[in-house]
Amino acid sequence: MKTIELMNYARGEWVCGAGDLRPIPSAIDGSEVARTGSDGLDFKAMLDHARKVGGPALRAMTFHERAWMLKSLGLAIMERKEELYALNPHSGATRKDGWIDIDGGALTLLSYSSKGRKELPDAKVLLDGALEPLSKEGNFVGQHILSPMQGAAVHINAFNFPVWGMLEKMAPTLLAGMPCIVKPATATSYLTEAAFRILIETGVLPDGAVQLIVGGVGDLFEHLNGQDIVSFTGSAQTAGKLKNHPTVLRESVRFIAEQDSLNASMLGLDAAPGTPEFDLFIREVVTEMTVKAGQKCTAIRRVMAPAEHLDAVEKAIREKLAAMTIGDPREKETQLGCLVSRSQRDDVRAKVAELVAGGARIVHGDPEAEVGPEGGAAISPVLLRADDPWSADAVHDVEAFGPVATVMPYQDVEDAIALANRGQGSLALSLFSNDRELAGRFIRGAAAFHGRMLVINRHNGRESTGHGSPLPVLVHGGPGRAGGSEEMGGIRGVKHYMQRTAIQSTPDMIAAISDQYVPGGPKRLIDTHPFRLKMSELEIGDTLKTESRTVTVEDIEHFAEFTGDNFYAHMDEEAAKASPIFEGRVAHGYLILSFAAGLFVHPDPGPVLANTGLENLRFLTPLYPGDSMRVELTVRSKSIKSDETGVVKWAVEIFNQKDEMVATYDLLTENTP
Amino acid sequence: MKTIELMNYARGEWVCGAGDLRPIPSAIDGSEVARTGSDGLDFKAMLDHARKVGGPALRAMTFHERAWMLKSLGLAIMERKEELYALNPHSGATRKDGWIDIDGGALTLLSYSSKGRKELPDAKVLLDGALEPLSKEGNFVGQHILSPMQGAAVHINAFNFPVWGMLEKMAPTLLAGMPCIVKPATATSYLTEAAFRILIETGVLPDGAVQLIVGGVGDLFEHLNGQDIVSFTGSAQTAGKLKNHPTVLRESVRFIAEQDSLNASMLGLDAAPGTPEFDLFIREVVTEMTVKAGQKCTAIRRVMAPAEHLDAVEKAIREKLAAMTIGDPREKETQLGCLVSRSQRDDVRAKVAELVAGGARIVHGDPEAEVGPEGGAAISPVLLRADDPWSADAVHDVEAFGPVATVMPYQDVEDAIALANRGQGSLALSLFSNDRELAGRFIRGAAAFHGRMLVINRHNGRESTGHGSPLPVLVHGGPGRAGGSEEMGGIRGVKHYMQRTAIQSTPDMIAAISDQYVPGGPKRLIDTHPFRLKMSELEIGDTLKTESRTVTVEDIEHFAEFTGDNFYAHMDEEAAKASPIFEGRVAHGYLILSFAAGLFVHPDPGPVLANTGLENLRFLTPLYPGDSMRVELTVRSKSIKSDETGVVKWAVEIFNQKDEMVATYDLLTENTP
Repeated sequence: MKTIELMNYARGEWVCGAGDLRPIPSAIDGSEVARTGSDGLDFKAMLDHARKVGGPALRAMTFHERAWMLKSLGLAIMERKEELYALNPHSGATRKDGWIDIDGGALTLLSYSSKGRKELPDAKVLLDGALEPLSKEGNFVGQHILSPMQGAAVHINAFNFPVWGMLEKMAPTLLAGMPCIVKPATATSYLTEAAFRILIETGVLPDGAVQLIVGGVGDLFEHLNGQDIVSFTGSAQTAGKLKNHPTVLRESVRFIAEQDSLNASMLGLDAAPGTPEFDLFIREVVTEMTVKAGQKCTAIRRVMAPAEHLDAVEKAIREKLAAMTIGDPREKETQLGCLVSRSQRDDVRAKVAELVAGGARIVHGDPEAEVGPEGGAAISPVLLRADDPWSADAVHDVEAFGPVATVMPYQDVEDAIALANRGQGSLALSLFSNDRELAGRFIRGAAAFHGRMLVINRHNGRESTGHGSPLPVLVHGGPGRAGGSEEMGGIRGVKHYMQRTAIQSTPDMIAAISDQYVPGGPKRLIDTHPFRLKMSELEIGDTLKTESRTVTVEDIEHFAEFTGDNFYAHMDEEAAKASPIFEGRVAHGYLILSFAAGLFVHPDPGPVLANTGLENLRFLTPLYPGDSMRVELTVRSKSIKSDETGVVKWAVEIFNQKDEMVATYDLLTENTP
Repeated sequence: MKTIELMNYARGEWVCGAGDLRPIPSAIDGSEVARTGSDGLDFKAMLDHARKVGGPALRAMTFHERAWMLKSLGLAIMERKEELYALNPHSGATRKDGWIDIDGGALTLLSYSSKGRKELPDAKVLLDGALEPLSKEGNFVGQHILSPMQGAAVHINAFNFPVWGMLEKMAPTLLAGMPCIVKPATATSYLTEAAFRILIETGVLPDGAVQLIVGGVGDLFEHLNGQDIVSFTGSAQTAGKLKNHPTVLRESVRFIAEQDSLNASMLGLDAAPGTPEFDLFIREVVTEMTVKAGQKCTAIRRVMAPAEHLDAVEKAIREKLAAMTIGDPREKETQLGCLVSRSQRDDVRAKVAELVAGGARIVHGDPEAEVGPEGGAAISPVLLRADDPWSADAVHDVEAFGPVATVMPYQDVEDAIALANRGQGSLALSLFSNDRELAGRFIRGAAAFHGRMLVINRHNGRESTGHGSPLPVLVHGGPGRAGGSEEMGGIRGVKHYMQRTAIQSTPDMIAAISDQYVPGGPKRLIDTHPFRLKMSELEIGDTLKTESRTVTVEDIEHFAEFTGDNFYAHMDEEAAKASPIFEGRVAHGYLILSFAAGLFVHPDPGPVLANTGLENLRFLTPLYPGDSMRVELTVRSKSIKSDETGVVKWAVEIFNQKDEMVATYDLLTENTP
């Protein structure tokens, strides 16, 4: 294969690094896959390009426009993924390993696209939480908003997931409206560059939205400021150095770190050999040791079992490991591919030696054995055992980033919690148990130390997505040693790239600032019934005011008779008067809702297909017999599910004849766009 | 007045510092108010006491139990506040200034108590967001939870709000279930110590929940770990040093920093002299310059006005400043008290000199003048003017922490945004404008640089809580120079002291872990109708299963006739069939809701006073004529508003004859506890 010369993408141009380029060896046989470098780039100018060109362009788009852009990017990766799978084996990864990286990366873009359209408004500012009343008369209220940070997001990625690692950071960043500069780890940067090229070639990204550095970052950190963000995945050592950078400290640069983690998996006290949980546990441990040759930040490193089952656990894992096909990631039958490089293999060997020196002993595999293709970076899986995990400090401290794990015993739930937490913060922990009481105690005792925890058993084992799989809808990250940050978690991850601001003003000013409907904000009366308008024709704030209708005592009695709801507050004048809330019989809440629909619904088929739900209903003023009611129906927000269907959220306000608010709620309808 | 010897509160004991104690001078006349020191404390043992005694005791309580505890603390401060007002003038503060600190502190405790009971469950774990489906069959779901961090929170406070500063950090920390160690600034630590003593003497705080250090923190930072949190208020310089501590970096200790801020206030382009906004602006600037003698991190330092109105602004502010009574904070007529100390006055004088050297000129006040009582720390208010704010760097960089502000002109909205943002991140910004379009543009352009922004005008000026007042329900903090963190913001602030963990398991396992009802989790059928039970008798998961009822086409037509809701999906078989959703005419959603109430409501007066609302309603399966429906009503959560009233949230699930879920929602009722 011809050596690829990697290019940086700076200020809208593909640029080759100056001077001598650095060779990148293939994990399979050490041959040169690519050469790379970033010397000569003007890093300050790249930051400024992101801030002054990319940021404004992204901020001019709404969340929905950015979400559609992510969809185009995800589909482009899917369409051209074979280009990436062709390079994938050079990273040591089998096709199955590559799925996590390549398909997994594209699916993360698509997940964020979908969440963005469903959960974010078609606007440029995100409202965070409800209006907070700050004065009695209601002209001074508080509303938290989130708006995109106005700097650049610098993404520093690890070698193990060159595609997914880029995309899981890029998706929430772009959706937030912030430009990014991607800096992949050199060892697999040819895969990142190829995927990045696919993104650029879609043509959907505005200039400055993304840039790429395939080499060192030069003096980039010296030019960061308080609107920039660094999002880092890699070793705690490198993270520490970067967090400690004088500019990062001085400017309070937001720093998201996802670093080392000695993840544990725990066999429950109830999960003796022979139970489904025992078998699921063994399968999971072996999978986590061998997928991506164990080069996953979420892989299981510490395998904990009740002392009486430790021998059985060790034996079962050893048997499965012994049956593994190791070696060339291009071969279909290979189950355990190569490490990314021989230098990485040296590192794993050194770490295994530290584990042995620190109180563990090898019970399966020889880290020094030559396995796989000649000149390549394959390694035998290594299982260690620490019989006294409280004296073997190294097993809780040293992360051998390869197919390496240590089995160890625990005594009871308290001991299990303490051992799990002794990792000083981790990304993922799994417990295999079918005992709800024990599992509840364990999880509550350990949750503060772990970013993601699974309880797997016979009921969900088949459906589980696995210990080692971060999902776009769940947070990825952990406290302490794991870096103390979070990535993804659905819209939570988008908020990391935004600034929260508490706005205090009148409701109508808050509506003007956010360009969204807020209660008390301005309404625009329209002539056409809004049920006759397509989503594209409806504007936020469009309002229908209905006629009014009187509610009689006969209506209330009729409704009670018809539905069977004879609650005293509607049917018994004396009892209603005696309650601390009512002055006499009142109309049923559901009667009010039903009459309201009768007032605002347009009967004919049209863009409104169905009433699909209702939110935040509050009954505020009782409606007494003889009172009348009328409705104001206002377009609050629109979200698009697909080309065929979307959801309109309507603010419904019901008033009585004194213009007191009787009830307020948000109505959801399914509409054609 | 006799000198007070301040005590530390360590490991449940009041302890005097060893060796020579440091004298603290009165701001009024320099006489010695107190002596203090913390030499000889075992700081590592204090951390361990918090972690091993205080943390477990707090975590054994529910959110509601902790919220009631906060109420007792707040009421105790209110009851004994005159003890604090007696000390208050020595800090230089007038009684009005003291209100923000003393009453404001107590009100913050009470606000958190109220929010805790209304917005948090009566449980030990907080569910964060909704269940995330992770598999098609529904046995594997995701749920984010928040649980208290298991370390100690170290609170490092500034001198300007010795009581509020302690309580605004303590309230969310204790509510989260985390113990804290309070370290006040020495200059006013006698007020903190006196307030802390009131808290301890309530007897409601478990051992280890709070500790106090009235002096240096010794080697405390060296013993921090990834479960601890540092929450700091003070200068950027000190914050930088602490964030840079090797242990903080190595252990990824969560660090909340609230530091320097050059807050701006902006006169809108529309707010010419003679408008109500102009007058409100002048009043606000003068208030912010003089309350607490300008020693507020949120005070206005940069006063920006349209160039054509700058002279009028300067004149109006000067006139008001000239009329001020300056000096002894004990005198009723004093409007501007003293700085906290003469060394602080030296600092303010030096900073004014820097501002002058940096391009501003003094237009009112003489910082060197001796004002107020002899030997005291009073200072004249100083107004500066910078005619070219783009060349006068110092006015955007140098914070004179006293009654000092600089007026400067701007040209247009874009210039105003750029100038505001040139502070590189601030806590609070106010805009005085009645122009919604201009204000919207300005706020959207500047929001990423500011933690809190007010738009004040003729409609809300009277109700406004003011530029400089952080509120417990709104976030306090700002990006960049301001530290990049958030405090308070209601329950948002509680979450800073908790760890978010994504749990993946079956719904019933998640119910067991969280001890809360989750959809799909276990239900407990009860014999008594739940409307007959008091809140204290209802348990989470208690469930009523109703009889079933058939819905006929006559019911649908009758309902349409009665309510006026003739939507085609209910009334027109052909049109309903033609829609992409329905197979024919369906029952109205509101008919289903109404019949559901008829099935589950118990008619007699009892603990359920009223149906007050409804949330998260989704219609999932259409109900066709001839189908039947039944309801399962389950206690989901309880919250207590007062001794007389509370809210029960019920999970309502409606099933058809095939046990398909027709609709699901949360019903809210007002109950007697």
